[in-house]
Amino acid sequence: MNQDYIKPDQWSIIEEGFDIDSVKSSESLFSIGNGAMGQRANFEEHYSGPTFQGSYIAGVYYPDKTRVGWWKNGYPEYFAKVLNAPNWIGINVSINGEPLDLFTCKNVETFRRELNMKEGWLSRSFKATLQNDIQVYVEVKRFLSLDLDEIGAIQYQIHPINKDAKISFEPYLNSGITNEDTNWDDKFWNTLNVNSDKNQAFIEAHTMKTNFHVCTFMESQCFLNNKSIVIKPETFRSETEIGFKFTTDVKQRETFTIHKFGGYTVDRNHDKNELVAVAKETLSKAKQLGFEGLLSQQILAWSKIWQKADITIDGDIKAQQGIRFNIFQLNQTYSGTDARLNIGPKGFTGEKYGGSTYWDTEAYCIPFYMATKDQKVARNLLEYRYNHLNKAIENAEKLGFKNGAALYPMVTMNGEECHNEWEITFQEIHRNGAIAYAIYNYHRFTDDYSYIPEKGLEVLIGIARFWYQRANFSSFKNKYVILGVTGPNEYENNINNNWYTNYIAQWCITYTIKNIEHIKENYNTDYTRVMHKVQLSNAEIELWDNVANNMYFPYSKEHEIFLQQDSFLDKELIPVSDLDKSNRPINQKWSWDRILRSPYIKQADVLQGFYFFEDNFTDEELARHFDFYEPFTVHESSLSPCVHSIQAAKLDRMDQAYEFYLRTSRLDLDDYNHEVEEGLHITSMAGTWMSIVEGFGGMRIKNNMLSFNPRIPKQWHGYSFKVNFRNQIVKVNVSQNETTFSIEGNQDLQISVNGKILKIVPKNLIKV
Amino acid sequence: MNQDYIKPDQWSIIEEGFDIDSVKSSESLFSIGNGAMGQRANFEEHYSGPTFQGSYIAGVYYPDKTRVGWWKNGYPEYFAKVLNAPNWIGINVSINGEPLDLFTCKNVETFRRELNMKEGWLSRSFKATLQNDIQVYVEVKRFLSLDLDEIGAIQYQIHPINKDAKISFEPYLNSGITNEDTNWDDKFWNTLNVNSDKNQAFIEAHTMKTNFHVCTFMESQCFLNNKSIVIKPETFRSETEIGFKFTTDVKQRETFTIHKFGGYTVDRNHDKNELVAVAKETLSKAKQLGFEGLLSQQILAWSKIWQKADITIDGDIKAQQGIRFNIFQLNQTYSGTDARLNIGPKGFTGEKYGGSTYWDTEAYCIPFYMATKDQKVARNLLEYRYNHLNKAIENAEKLGFKNGAALYPMVTMNGEECHNEWEITFQEIHRNGAIAYAIYNYHRFTDDYSYIPEKGLEVLIGIARFWYQRANFSSFKNKYVILGVTGPNEYENNINNNWYTNYIAQWCITYTIKNIEHIKENYNTDYTRVMHKVQLSNAEIELWDNVANNMYFPYSKEHEIFLQQDSFLDKELIPVSDLDKSNRPINQKWSWDRILRSPYIKQADVLQGFYFFEDNFTDEELARHFDFYEPFTVHESSLSPCVHSIQAAKLDRMDQAYEFYLRTSRLDLDDYNHEVEEGLHITSMAGTWMSIVEGFGGMRIKNNMLSFNPRIPKQWHGYSFKVNFRNQIVKVNVSQNETTFSIEGNQDLQISVNGKILKIVPKNLIKV
Repeated sequence: MNQDYIKPDQWSIIEEGFDIDSVKSSESLFSIGNGAMGQRANFEEHYSGPTFQGSYIAGVYYPDKTRVGWWKNGYPEYFAKVLNAPNWIGINVSINGEPLDLFTCKNVETFRRELNMKEGWLSRSFKATLQNDIQVYVEVKRFLSLDLDEIGAIQYQIHPINKDAKISFEPYLNSGITNEDTNWDDKFWNTLNVNSDKNQAFIEAHTMKTNFHVCTFMESQCFLNNKSIVIKPETFRSETEIGFKFTTDVKQRETFTIHKFGGYTVDRNHDKNELVAVAKETLSKAKQLGFEGLLSQQILAWSKIWQKADITIDGDIKAQQGIRFNIFQLNQTYSGTDARLNIGPKGFTGEKYGGSTYWDTEAYCIPFYMATKDQKVARNLLEYRYNHLNKAIENAEKLGFKNGAALYPMVTMNGEECHNEWEITFQEIHRNGAIAYAIYNYHRFTDDYSYIPEKGLEVLIGIARFWYQRANFSSFKNKYVILGVTGPNEYENNINNNWYTNYIAQWCITYTIKNIEHIKENYNTDYTRVMHKVQLSNAEIELWDNVANNMYFPYSKEHEIFLQQDSFLDKELIPVSDLDKSNRPINQKWSWDRILRSPYIKQADVLQGFYFFEDNFTDEELARHFDFYEPFTVHESSLSPCVHSIQAAKLDRMDQAYEFYLRTSRLDLDDYNHEVEEGLHITSMAGTWMSIVEGFGGMRIKNNMLSFNPRIPKQWHGYSFKVNFRNQIVKVNVSQNETTFSIEGNQDLQISVNGKILKIVPKNLIKV
Repeated sequence: MNQDYIKPDQWSIIEEGFDIDSVKSSESLFSIGNGAMGQRANFEEHYSGPTFQGSYIAGVYYPDKTRVGWWKNGYPEYFAKVLNAPNWIGINVSINGEPLDLFTCKNVETFRRELNMKEGWLSRSFKATLQNDIQVYVEVKRFLSLDLDEIGAIQYQIHPINKDAKISFEPYLNSGITNEDTNWDDKFWNTLNVNSDKNQAFIEAHTMKTNFHVCTFMESQCFLNNKSIVIKPETFRSETEIGFKFTTDVKQRETFTIHKFGGYTVDRNHDKNELVAVAKETLSKAKQLGFEGLLSQQILAWSKIWQKADITIDGDIKAQQGIRFNIFQLNQTYSGTDARLNIGPKGFTGEKYGGSTYWDTEAYCIPFYMATKDQKVARNLLEYRYNHLNKAIENAEKLGFKNGAALYPMVTMNGEECHNEWEITFQEIHRNGAIAYAIYNYHRFTDDYSYIPEKGLEVLIGIARFWYQRANFSSFKNKYVILGVTGPNEYENNINNNWYTNYIAQWCITYTIKNIEHIKENYNTDYTRVMHKVQLSNAEIELWDNVANNMYFPYSKEHEIFLQQDSFLDKELIPVSDLDKSNRPINQKWSWDRILRSPYIKQADVLQGFYFFEDNFTDEELARHFDFYEPFTVHESSLSPCVHSIQAAKLDRMDQAYEFYLRTSRLDLDDYNHEVEEGLHITSMAGTWMSIVEGFGGMRIKNNMLSFNPRIPKQWHGYSFKVNFRNQIVKVNVSQNETTFSIEGNQDLQISVNGKILKIVPKNLIKV
């Protein structure tokens, strides 16, 4: 059974009633972020029950020791640990001297938590009866500003219900934090200064080893019945903590309120000696706006995001809530304004999967950001990899490649590999293909070719060189083979001729050669510059071409399918449906060797290739491969259901498509994998978006034109989405009877719908 | 270049001249042991230069945390760490207050170290000039008693050469030791008591976690010019150390001597509360004999070992030294008297390869111990596995096997798996085959069938059940396949249908069924008992039989060879000889993925199967497989050259056989792998013995008869060895012209030589 305590709502995630067993799950689900920082929905006041404290700063990580059984040559020296950052949200509360702690209260009633996705804030309210029998009503609202992305704001309101009371707010900063995932007593933060200045406080600290300097800051203001009051606070301070205690007498039904602004200034953006000064400026801007002013800005900023990115679903409130949750979290994680950042699989919601960048970015996230934001955002994501090209070349050199061959890391923070399992780090090399594919995908969608001659071509050449060197000629097969890889299905390791890998390798080489030729003819200056820089000869290109043209692809004549890898048919081909449920999920129930020799597929593998390169295969071929592989697929990766949903929709199997859609869109809300406590699955949320837009909407770029093939699950009355296509926003509205298209702005747009070309004219609704 | 500083000698390992760069290498090479304990040849007096301190107690280990990148289900909770034990050999020396320290002396002359293998002692002598210009001559002799295996003895003699001097001996015990391989500041020993009683001292300590209790003890006695003198010592003591300081004035040319007895009593053999009392008894026995008396016993004990185990080589002193070094170290490591102990790959000479028991024991060591010791020793080694059968069944259950299927651990101290790489732990399952093969081998050699009905049958059934469950039917191949294994060649992981594994799996099942039938007919009580205990039905046996009869073996028609695994021919088949030397050894120069997809073989794999089951293949087949595989073999396992030497000899390729022999026999003395500092390769030393006896001597058991096919390398005048065959000691002497056979005792023995049957009669030399 999946969890089911989140209230269905169009625009909000809502929890009602206080359940200590849901606290960690809700801390994940109600997480907030603004691209620069983010935090789990931990309570402001002290909570002595089970909790997973987490506050994270984009780009701030720790290089933890790589601990392995036996060291293998080529392993990275470290893996990146997503680092819990100093806590600035804390506001301890005491009432007549007794701390407010929901875990120890006599009673908690009318507990309600809301994550308002439309406006970008988190709230919490409850009535609590303390051990001293005082009953109080509490309302808290918190958000991280999108506009001033170094700051967040909290409004904490309390009123005593049954008695007058002496109430204290103790806002504090604390840099004495640790990670949940450390067992080794490593210290991650070194606190340099703990200072206060009137109602402001600052902790300057830097991370060990990586030496990121961060100033954590706060300022608070108190109100009684919404009127500002001045209370002289007691100050308390330790080596890693500073706080102020504001105490006042509050009469029954009066409301005591604190506004706390806080956040981080980071030396990625400022001189490390200026962090306190910048913090003061930021606080001053925030104070000038006040809590309400900053909140108004926040609502406006989110309305602009939704204006481009919203998807509506009519007649299925859980599906509606699910898709908005996905879009909301993606926007909280990555705003696209900083090319040094990327999209971590857990965003700012947990510690798992150290490192921010996986192939998820290129394979799953870029389409979402391309279609819902300015195209500069997607270009930033491409440039991230361009900026890491030299490190990818070094990484390949460590593994014995040469002549500028590039192998991008499986997991990275700064371009260096930071994952340490040979079967992944050294063998899951198909990631290189996704990085090339993203360049193609970006050009296809935006029509911005300029990126390729300027930057992308060098990346493509490095990748093509890698594939050329990585393949070897098999005299036995009289073809080029690629041995010893892990494909997208991580439930097979060190396999030979993974079809997906061989296919994308061949495609990378062919695509690179095509671009070299095109740039030679049309961008001669760039051509000369790049060819000189990378020292590429025609003779070398011919060698690549030979490998691409003679690539081996495992194929079963009996089944008329491409084989996922050479030995797939030797496995005991028992479909998942015949497995006793007690075996599932196999990654928790089975030993690794048993998983490896089973036919069970963690996520789309051959079908991932059919998704990327669908024009190269007929629907009949797709159906045959879907029917062969899906029955062995356990979907134990969050990235699996979305691709299957898209493929099922393409095959007009709408029931199946809908089932996969639900699984991807409410993966975290309903906690399908029983692990939401650890954080959310951010990157797969982009897959959910694809399931609707590409799956149900059938959106493609065909013949350089936006194209649709709309379908609708029978459970829905209708759905709509928007796409920013080459700076024109197209709105698509699909119902059971018809599909309408409209366009913002003043320009016409030709699109293709179900194979017919139509023109959308501004201010006109086109019905199909 | 290999190292070349050990002086050639018939019976001793000799080093002349003091070289700080050789200290760690010599500490390994001059290691001493007595089966119950052992130690690196560390200096008794303080040495401030680079050194690797190591003293080890059989069966005393530490369960270190398993640290892996990402945890896999089924991994063991810990891996065993060979534990550096408290130091009892220390005798600090000071001369006129200046510590004697060879690293800081002004000058060290006539330094000589000797490991006398004939008599089982280690000596060291040198002339040192201290910073205070006093010149002294030092002679030290040390041994670990074979007879009293809890004790060792040191005689440390010093005389001032150029001046009278005040000399102090400070014998001490120290339990504040650590391991070289710990980076985690783990504490391994907890010291309980540090006590002295007159000239005796005791440190009681126990290991953390495993809670092995050990008393480390010592007693010393001083002599001036060989006359016992009484000196009242100063006692010094800390939480983990205790020592006595004996000081006296020594005239020029006088000799000041200390005899120190020391060692360990361990709760494996005694009640933990009696350890001090037992230590006192042991000291009392040793003192009664005195240093010289104990040494005489030692010489006698070693002469008895050599009486059975010696191999002579005439005309090649380095080869002679090499083989004796191997025999000596094997005897130092394992005496065979305690069925709870086994043969660690590094013996008592280093920390690497935690755990004492690998498949090395069954595949390489048992033949040596069978032929050079009482057959009870080999039976003890078999019983070790019988005693661990339940844990092997549990181990298999962890991996999803059932119904009593047994998977023996890859590495163990107590029957539990303690290695944590999935490709080894879960996949190098052929180890199960070697354990069954050893039962067969023991019966074949000793003719003692009783072990099988009594104990071995249960082991065989557990192993057969494992293989039956581990194979799966491939509809594609219409055969049973074994997927996802690592064969003896660890340079391929997660391969399918490793020929060696499939072959030994088939053999195990067939051999088990044969034994079941034999025992049913001939040992009905045992049959009933065992069948009841393991709940084995005829129906189940038929299922096994079906798998064995339909096992798939990869074969190349083109090359007419069995393929090491399904995909071997897809590799780029460049022979090792075409590799640039800068690539070697590949395990230090290449990344793991590159090794895995290369054709390079770490150690005999298909050829290991041909070695075990040679009667099933013709010499022509052997030659074809040798010629195919050896050119791809890098012999980067110490276990590789011996099998190749035996096969080359069988094929009459004596130059090659000799080359491989040299490599195995002087692997450590000449430091082929540039790692002797870390310790010796003990288990492969048994392979060296096999190279002579089975390789050159061509010894086999054929038709239940001892059989020889003697050959001799052209570099040798002659060689001889002895074999304890079914309690009769046969001596074989091979020269360039003839081979002679003789027998000890009073009974005749029929043997087969070059296919002809001969009778050896006592007191007669038979020439062939």
